[in-house]
Amino acid sequence: MGSNEQKGSFQKAARWHPPAYDVRVEMIPIPSIVHPDDAIVKVKYTAVCGSDLHIYRGHGTTVNAHTMGHEFIGEIITLGESFRSDVVDRPALYSTLRVGDKVVSPFTTNCGECHVCRLGYTGRCTAGLLFGCDALDGGQAQYVRVPKAGSTLFSLSKPTWNSTLSGPERAKALAGLNDSSLLLLADILPTGVFAAIQATSHPKVLPMINGLPWPYALNPDQASDLEKQVLTPEDRLLVFAIVGLGPVGICAAVSLLDVLARRQLPYKIVAIDPLEARREKMKAVYDKIGSDGKGQGEFAVASIDEAKALVQTLTGGVGCTAVLEIVGNNSAISLAYDLVRAFGAIVSVGVHGEPSVPFTGRQLYNKNVSFDFGRCPARAMFPPAFDLLVKRQDVFGGVGEPTSLIDRIISLDDAPEAYKKFDKGEWGKVILDPWK
Amino acid sequence: MGSNEQKGSFQKAARWHPPAYDVRVEMIPIPSIVHPDDAIVKVKYTAVCGSDLHIYRGHGTTVNAHTMGHEFIGEIITLGESFRSDVVDRPALYSTLRVGDKVVSPFTTNCGECHVCRLGYTGRCTAGLLFGCDALDGGQAQYVRVPKAGSTLFSLSKPTWNSTLSGPERAKALAGLNDSSLLLLADILPTGVFAAIQATSHPKVLPMINGLPWPYALNPDQASDLEKQVLTPEDRLLVFAIVGLGPVGICAAVSLLDVLARRQLPYKIVAIDPLEARREKMKAVYDKIGSDGKGQGEFAVASIDEAKALVQTLTGGVGCTAVLEIVGNNSAISLAYDLVRAFGAIVSVGVHGEPSVPFTGRQLYNKNVSFDFGRCPARAMFPPAFDLLVKRQDVFGGVGEPTSLIDRIISLDDAPEAYKKFDKGEWGKVILDPWK
Repeated sequence: MGSNEQKGSFQKAARWHPPAYDVRVEMIPIPSIVHPDDAIVKVKYTAVCGSDLHIYRGHGTTVNAHTMGHEFIGEIITLGESFRSDVVDRPALYSTLRVGDKVVSPFTTNCGECHVCRLGYTGRCTAGLLFGCDALDGGQAQYVRVPKAGSTLFSLSKPTWNSTLSGPERAKALAGLNDSSLLLLADILPTGVFAAIQATSHPKVLPMINGLPWPYALNPDQASDLEKQVLTPEDRLLVFAIVGLGPVGICAAVSLLDVLARRQLPYKIVAIDPLEARREKMKAVYDKIGSDGKGQGEFAVASIDEAKALVQTLTGGVGCTAVLEIVGNNSAISLAYDLVRAFGAIVSVGVHGEPSVPFTGRQLYNKNVSFDFGRCPARAMFPPAFDLLVKRQDVFGGVGEPTSLIDRIISLDDAPEAYKKFDKGEWGKVILDPWK
Repeated sequence: MGSNEQKGSFQKAARWHPPAYDVRVEMIPIPSIVHPDDAIVKVKYTAVCGSDLHIYRGHGTTVNAHTMGHEFIGEIITLGESFRSDVVDRPALYSTLRVGDKVVSPFTTNCGECHVCRLGYTGRCTAGLLFGCDALDGGQAQYVRVPKAGSTLFSLSKPTWNSTLSGPERAKALAGLNDSSLLLLADILPTGVFAAIQATSHPKVLPMINGLPWPYALNPDQASDLEKQVLTPEDRLLVFAIVGLGPVGICAAVSLLDVLARRQLPYKIVAIDPLEARREKMKAVYDKIGSDGKGQGEFAVASIDEAKALVQTLTGGVGCTAVLEIVGNNSAISLAYDLVRAFGAIVSVGVHGEPSVPFTGRQLYNKNVSFDFGRCPARAMFPPAFDLLVKRQDVFGGVGEPTSLIDRIISLDDAPEAYKKFDKGEWGKVILDPWK
């Protein structure tokens, strides 16, 4: 156990105040251990996420002032009693954390002990909390308290997770990753991977992937020679649309391309955003990715206005096999509906708000639409996201380049300005350095 | 080719007239071949389906008078030119039909030549039509014209479809099936099987089935020993709710039980309907099924009022792994939402209408809900439905018994009364005999 090196003293934090559009940098007490499962993390970097804007704008469900932010990396400076080596009733993961460990945190806590966590649905742990709301102060500060730390934090100092890399490869990779790149693991890269994995494993998409008509695509061992001869190569073409090319949308595109390349699946992708700057970044990212990361297919970017006609042309009027919706509003999900084929899948990882979804039952029935809504289980998605981060350092490694997801690294003192400019679309994603 | 044995003469048909609640038995011309792909079928039996009530009540999209009905079996009396043995440019299925064949038709036509049909999504063939609306006269008549007959009709005289039964077993089974039982293949049994297959193959359900946490459940070969040890036997328990115990709901329950029994998966099922008579029928059906058709699990029926508390108790507050929604209105789909767990799946095969679906985006995001909406691709689902029909003759074979899905066989002349009583819930499913 370490002792809190600055116990009783104060720290800087970017705090939201109700009702809206009010983030202030304030001095507040450094957090201390409240529960034996807690860790205190000294924050190295923290980033502003698109979903922080829901809270910033007062559209969230939080009502009281709190520290913002759910993306952070740092170093463990204090651990609760549960981490003592003589404590044996905590999950095995508790034994992997030590004071001094470099850690990345998923954007929600999760207990690691409940049915929901064991299933891998860690983002909906019944004891889980989202960082950066009034139930749990966030990471846009110099220090942050992490509840259920043993099953929430990933130690980058002692990697234990499943990886396609060998141990030495992983260690070497970790040594080469800069901190701004690792910060992507907190939310946006796992969320992009989550969207891509759902879209490429959906039952409605399996006929293209397995080359068998539905329902045999679900149970290939039940197919006879008859079913194996039905689909033409053209039938198996996967056509995806990605609605929203913010940082998560670009992560989803890179992940989707990687899955398609690894599995050697032919594809067409239409990546859509109303903002030209985002479309240009998406194009630059696509151009930078080597053939190992994009396989054999066509990739186009389109404005909202262009998207429908382009999908019509590319698919002969049929529509997309699946649409990845990475925005979280009714315009985006309506566009997804218009673009998807009958018997297609809409994967929505955007954070949706209070409005009712804009569909009649008949519309959904008549198109045989499937939806997957909701939050990424970031803890569970960490392993594939890490492997992709290592593989695609050409895209994820930089800051401030045309292909970078992070536009700039600024002082935490500038958080109020960063929120204002991010809210207006004048700035892209920024990292806040609490020590700069 | 046969000639139309009664060309130019008239037949009886049950016809809907706008605006609503007006079905009349009328004499209309016997249909004749309009397109070379057509067949004319002499109807043996035709049934009234719950979704006929949408049209009956004027809630459908049809505006002109037409012959009702999308469930029928019969005998081919005339075939178009495409079925001549010297015609080689039609799909192979065209060569399987002969005049005199006993046939069952799925409730929609499908061309068998388009991308959508090849994928197995036959219910949304772009050239497909629903029988019994103003675009295509239905089967509640003495004769019916079947467009795209080669890829729509199943010949029971010359079975060619994939089956778990051997050729001789299938021939023997076919000889033993009565016509009222075969009529279930037109819609309600495939639709029930469709619901059960979707619910048991959904990616959100796979962790329970494969015994691996998400996302490894999607790609078991990527799991290490670490992931293989995470789930407890209790975690793998599948808990399903079925909302709506009309004839399709009972078919879905029987199909779901069969899948679970065959795969030896432990389960709890809560089958829900507001009507006591339907709950009693569901209970009687469950009791009649042998252990080969229900495996190891718990099965309860519940009223709407009882359902939520029961699911809470059975699942320790977590909710259902998946909910099968077999009604098609907002009450049913709201109940499904309330019953499903976070990261659960709602499979909706009910025919939904004009109202907007009753969910905010936040509700869907916050529960990580997945939906599968829409119409059964009945042609594609015929093979597994047929195997289940043969296997479960104990349930599907009878008429008018406590376990029967068909309450009675009446004359087509009584169609107006049948619609009135079915609409009011006074009668269950009836077969109309056009020759009685």
